[in-house]
Amino acid sequence: MKIESSIVIREVGLRDGLQSIDRSMPTAHKLEWLRSAHAAGVREIEVGSFVPARLLPQLADTVELVGVARSLPGLTTSVLVPNLKGAQAALDSGADAMLLPLSASQAHSLANLRKSPDEVVGEIGRIRAARDAAGSRCLLEVGISTAFGCTIQGPVEPAEVLRLVEAVLDAGADRVGLADTVGYADPLQVTRLFERARALAGERLDCGHFHDTRGLGMANVMAAWQTGVRRFDACLGGIGGCPHAPGASGNVATEDLAYLFASMGVPTGLDLAALLALRAALARWLDGVPLHGSIARAGLPRTLRLAA
Amino acid sequence: MKIESSIVIREVGLRDGLQSIDRSMPTAHKLEWLRSAHAAGVREIEVGSFVPARLLPQLADTVELVGVARSLPGLTTSVLVPNLKGAQAALDSGADAMLLPLSASQAHSLANLRKSPDEVVGEIGRIRAARDAAGSRCLLEVGISTAFGCTIQGPVEPAEVLRLVEAVLDAGADRVGLADTVGYADPLQVTRLFERARALAGERLDCGHFHDTRGLGMANVMAAWQTGVRRFDACLGGIGGCPHAPGASGNVATEDLAYLFASMGVPTGLDLAALLALRAALARWLDGVPLHGSIARAGLPRTLRLAA
Repeated sequence: MKIESSIVIREVGLRDGLQSIDRSMPTAHKLEWLRSAHAAGVREIEVGSFVPARLLPQLADTVELVGVARSLPGLTTSVLVPNLKGAQAALDSGADAMLLPLSASQAHSLANLRKSPDEVVGEIGRIRAARDAAGSRCLLEVGISTAFGCTIQGPVEPAEVLRLVEAVLDAGADRVGLADTVGYADPLQVTRLFERARALAGERLDCGHFHDTRGLGMANVMAAWQTGVRRFDACLGGIGGCPHAPGASGNVATEDLAYLFASMGVPTGLDLAALLALRAALARWLDGVPLHGSIARAGLPRTLRLAA
Repeated sequence: MKIESSIVIREVGLRDGLQSIDRSMPTAHKLEWLRSAHAAGVREIEVGSFVPARLLPQLADTVELVGVARSLPGLTTSVLVPNLKGAQAALDSGADAMLLPLSASQAHSLANLRKSPDEVVGEIGRIRAARDAAGSRCLLEVGISTAFGCTIQGPVEPAEVLRLVEAVLDAGADRVGLADTVGYADPLQVTRLFERARALAGERLDCGHFHDTRGLGMANVMAAWQTGVRRFDACLGGIGGCPHAPGASGNVATEDLAYLFASMGVPTGLDLAALLALRAALARWLDGVPLHGSIARAGLPRTLRLAA
């Protein structure tokens, strides 16, 4: 395990977290979150999504957030785009990166996007062409969701995930990540799938997205890290839970992930105390919404050597 | 990773869990817990502690529990003993194994046992002599507590932990385990210390005891398992938390550990549905005491192939 190389934690709470919460967070709070996360050392933030506001009114202020995020020094501003139309909005906004989700589960893909995985691959080609035609340097990233199983379909074959990894790269994606969207992955499965995906994609396999729904979030992050992954998604306070499992945890918590790596001496650039202060503010802004994660409840150990 | 070899989860909730809860669980509930855990496939249970009843009235019925546990087929009945006097009671009770804790933190050892670690090593020699003189086959196990850091002392040097591993084996312990008593360990630290301890102790290094206080319980279990550990302590419902960190998780939850290994296809012999039913009973018996763990809240994934 090479511990000298730093890792990147991408904060996705402003998009992935907030979209699963019914109420809309006021833009002023989002901007405070954005600025405070940046001040705490976060250098990549998914600030919103270019989906129609009637579908996700919680994220209707994405253009404004991109504008402010672009003004923060050293920050990579990332947005989610569901299709070519969203990608064009992302290119217009000046975001640094756009993430297109592609579900490896046929059933999940049809239910969520009304497209088959291969139809999404076709859209990636069109997005890449539009990006290049615009002369934009906006990174095109694809997140392969339900890569470890699906609540609708059940098992998802690793061979199908790997086929899609190749297909999205061939279609023009700059980088690709694997996501355990529903919290089904186990560490051994993570090791095997990330190793095989790396053999195909090399350094273009660039992100692990894990949920802590069944308590294995940190163990799965460790497994992916041991295969060479150096970039992970996380949500402050572990928000972004599945509405089908009330009370269950959601995405791995940013502050817990930052603590995991700090405890091992792996540089993240993050200020843990500042992250915990921001989490306390989030708890006030989302009063009544359950937050998750362990380190905020237990406190930092007195043995921790802070390696920022 | 050799996944074919099975692992043993030792249930320590009846001792480690209940001793940190002020109220006493009625013996009838403890016996139902014991019998139901056995019926769910648990084959090693720490049923109590031979400490003076005035110190831990919650565990005053240990003799009775050992008697019933011995009648359950295939069950290894384990008890905690703090000293020679406790060990003599354990030998009299007919328990299969006795666990003596030894704190690698000088400060923790003096605060908890009023003995230095080396004084405890001396006691191990006397316990071994008493065991042999009695012609007993009761296993003598030593748990090195605070092996990864201490809330009182702070850091605990790995060299001191390893010195004590050798010393307790030289003094006559049959096997030894390493415990993250306060939830300070990180996976890299676990890997390194267990690897070094195995080089000294070989197969006699036989147990990992982890807390989930800071969310790293499962990741630490994985790290120890990858070094060859095949036996882990756990508490149903994750009880056994530290009174100094209210709201924080305690020991790793038995049902979460069983799920971790089941999800990877590693045999544990445990019936997950039966464990979850028992946890629901425990929640009733301990009404008002917070339970921890993830799988009970989220439910089993539909992709799980149950490998008992």
